[in-house]
Amino acid sequence: MSDRVFATYEIETAFPLEQAAATMAGEQSTGTFVRVPGETDALREAHAARVEALEELGEVSAPSLPGSGLPKNGGDGKRRRARVTLSWPTSNFGLSLPNLLATINGNLSELKAFSGLRLVDVTLPPAFLTRYQGPQFGVAGTRRLAGVYDRPMIGTIIKPSVGLSPEATAEQVRALVEAGVDFIKDDELQADGPHCPFEARISAVMRVINDHADKTGKKVMFAANLTGEMDEMLARHDHVLREGGTCIMASMNSIGLPAMKMLRAHAQLPIHGHRNGWGMLGRSPAIGMSYIAFQKLWRLAGIDHTHVNGIDNKFCESNESVIASARECLTPMFPAPHAGCEIMPVFSSGQSARQVPATFAALGSTNLIFAAGGGIMAHPGGPGAGVRALQQAWEAAVAGVDQAEAASQAPELRDALAAFAG
Amino acid sequence: MSDRVFATYEIETAFPLEQAAATMAGEQSTGTFVRVPGETDALREAHAARVEALEELGEVSAPSLPGSGLPKNGGDGKRRRARVTLSWPTSNFGLSLPNLLATINGNLSELKAFSGLRLVDVTLPPAFLTRYQGPQFGVAGTRRLAGVYDRPMIGTIIKPSVGLSPEATAEQVRALVEAGVDFIKDDELQADGPHCPFEARISAVMRVINDHADKTGKKVMFAANLTGEMDEMLARHDHVLREGGTCIMASMNSIGLPAMKMLRAHAQLPIHGHRNGWGMLGRSPAIGMSYIAFQKLWRLAGIDHTHVNGIDNKFCESNESVIASARECLTPMFPAPHAGCEIMPVFSSGQSARQVPATFAALGSTNLIFAAGGGIMAHPGGPGAGVRALQQAWEAAVAGVDQAEAASQAPELRDALAAFAG
Repeated sequence: MSDRVFATYEIETAFPLEQAAATMAGEQSTGTFVRVPGETDALREAHAARVEALEELGEVSAPSLPGSGLPKNGGDGKRRRARVTLSWPTSNFGLSLPNLLATINGNLSELKAFSGLRLVDVTLPPAFLTRYQGPQFGVAGTRRLAGVYDRPMIGTIIKPSVGLSPEATAEQVRALVEAGVDFIKDDELQADGPHCPFEARISAVMRVINDHADKTGKKVMFAANLTGEMDEMLARHDHVLREGGTCIMASMNSIGLPAMKMLRAHAQLPIHGHRNGWGMLGRSPAIGMSYIAFQKLWRLAGIDHTHVNGIDNKFCESNESVIASARECLTPMFPAPHAGCEIMPVFSSGQSARQVPATFAALGSTNLIFAAGGGIMAHPGGPGAGVRALQQAWEAAVAGVDQAEAASQAPELRDALAAFAG
Repeated sequence: MSDRVFATYEIETAFPLEQAAATMAGEQSTGTFVRVPGETDALREAHAARVEALEELGEVSAPSLPGSGLPKNGGDGKRRRARVTLSWPTSNFGLSLPNLLATINGNLSELKAFSGLRLVDVTLPPAFLTRYQGPQFGVAGTRRLAGVYDRPMIGTIIKPSVGLSPEATAEQVRALVEAGVDFIKDDELQADGPHCPFEARISAVMRVINDHADKTGKKVMFAANLTGEMDEMLARHDHVLREGGTCIMASMNSIGLPAMKMLRAHAQLPIHGHRNGWGMLGRSPAIGMSYIAFQKLWRLAGIDHTHVNGIDNKFCESNESVIASARECLTPMFPAPHAGCEIMPVFSSGQSARQVPATFAALGSTNLIFAAGGGIMAHPGGPGAGVRALQQAWEAAVAGVDQAEAASQAPELRDALAAFAG
């Protein structure tokens, strides 16, 4: 078993590709701009990053990003895109995600040789599982807590995002649980503002959810947004647990990997990893990183669910990118017999029954949370009909029945398709 | 005193600018894609984000980023850039940096209305100082610990970045302290790899630094890279303190704001905030955020130093951007009598005596760490001459003496200028 980490990048450069790849490897391992006395051949052999693969992808007419330079001899006048894979021995940084980040990202994006440089994938050796716990619940554990099997979990989000009191939030939750949803999440903008303190909100919400569970046997999963400082997050987790809650949520880009590791070690509940802020890293094709790479690091640190947007979402992500992220969540990170760290992808952002057939066709699985906000609340028959329409849409998709045909037998689905004609 | 947070963005959109700005405000406060029942006028008045300023910057011919959309009516066929300032009441998120991030960044970068959206500045009310400690040492405390006044601290970096044993690292430190440097930092790639464990490295390094201090009275500051998991970082801080060290270093993008807050609360030493990974957020003019905005959040969380690259650096950052970041580090974040949270900017990346006059002319201050790697180690007269040349360059710049004229009286500076002709 290799003890090396592999990272793949898409680059754009006016330098000869072999030279550009060697620059990346040097910058992120033994190199500096003049070779220094301690940099022996033995040291380089043991610690230098290696260029494992290099594939040209074609020429570009103009640099995608400013600030890049040309080779001293001016080069051949062409600027090329390429896919490069580098590798490092784990002995360079240890089995440490924060230090791995400094190595695979580090200063690479600032190098003058590149007018584009984006991390597209990373592969870690299973030895990282000796230091990181991975998801505690994953797909199966989440389904067990929610009591939902053999179909997607139907989810929704508290709106408006901010401004509701704990009591008003709980009232909205009452309407949603009565409508039949499986999963509700706090908005990522709502954590512990003074008008809606975390503990009061969760206590009010869980009273409603617990009452509903007592009456119906169905315990709806509520992802309580505990994003905050380290001590706050641990205390808030304990409050959720005490109130009988079954899920916590944290904004990954707000808290960082060490906080997630600590939260995972403490947690007795699934962690809903919210990716807000992701657009800063993910949107440009020339810089940042893919969600394929990003979510692997966070799965290892311990998240159980993460957002992937959805087909024809209201944001700017392409369907191809959405489905690639979702598939990756369900793909083992490590080969058997090691843990695969699979997690639940969460589809959201402008979703309604309309997107269900394409989602199932592309993913080929019902292991997902399908979250709709307006798609449930704005159904002409009310939220209950909104939830029922989504369930009908998924039943039809899984059974291979055409959506229009299914709608002719299912009035809630028919009304949803009419209302959310797009 | 306002209790609002202000954030300024540069945007690019085919939508009417007022509508685009309103979309941003809605997405990051009360809005969703259909107005929901609980969204009352009173709630909107209290919690909706406000558009405070909107300035058109001109038209662009093509979208900078993919995935953006057009208004339903097609718009006027033009795509514009603009600067927008939004504000939020702190009651939306509380005095919490992680939740502030979810608000000022959040999903904005993913909105379809924009083909560019970049956070360029943020202004916080002083109330945040009741929850965050800011820098413990800052400029004055760092100078006091290093015993360097009235001139820049001359710094350098251990190279090669990885592969040196603790003993080899200490040997390099010996050469550097004998050369007369004020400040040495671990490379950001070197934290606690198995070939160079943190505790052994710092013990070996501090024996050299303490011996040198005993002999000469000069205690060189060594920024020990303790980046890692939360418990590791606190224990490593204690080890540095026990060994008589005077600085710790952490990679900000690797650890996250809650970990930095916790480290700051525990620390008795200045925190060197390393910004590796910054290029992912900072490099594109169309996405991400400026270092002006980024460093404010980390100063409040507790860093005492941060990197700004340098004039004519080997990376792709423009001199204008470098100097804007450095000036911001020295500019109070809050008006008197509140703490200003000023910190030490660290100039680095391909720096030598050549860049000194332009650096001083642009910054107008000697409150900085001027770090050179090859610029010291590769001086033809050896590292001691390399350090002396940098000191001579700064003496001349501050005295207003032309560099060539100063070099005629200063052989080390003369040799440096000849060696690093660029």
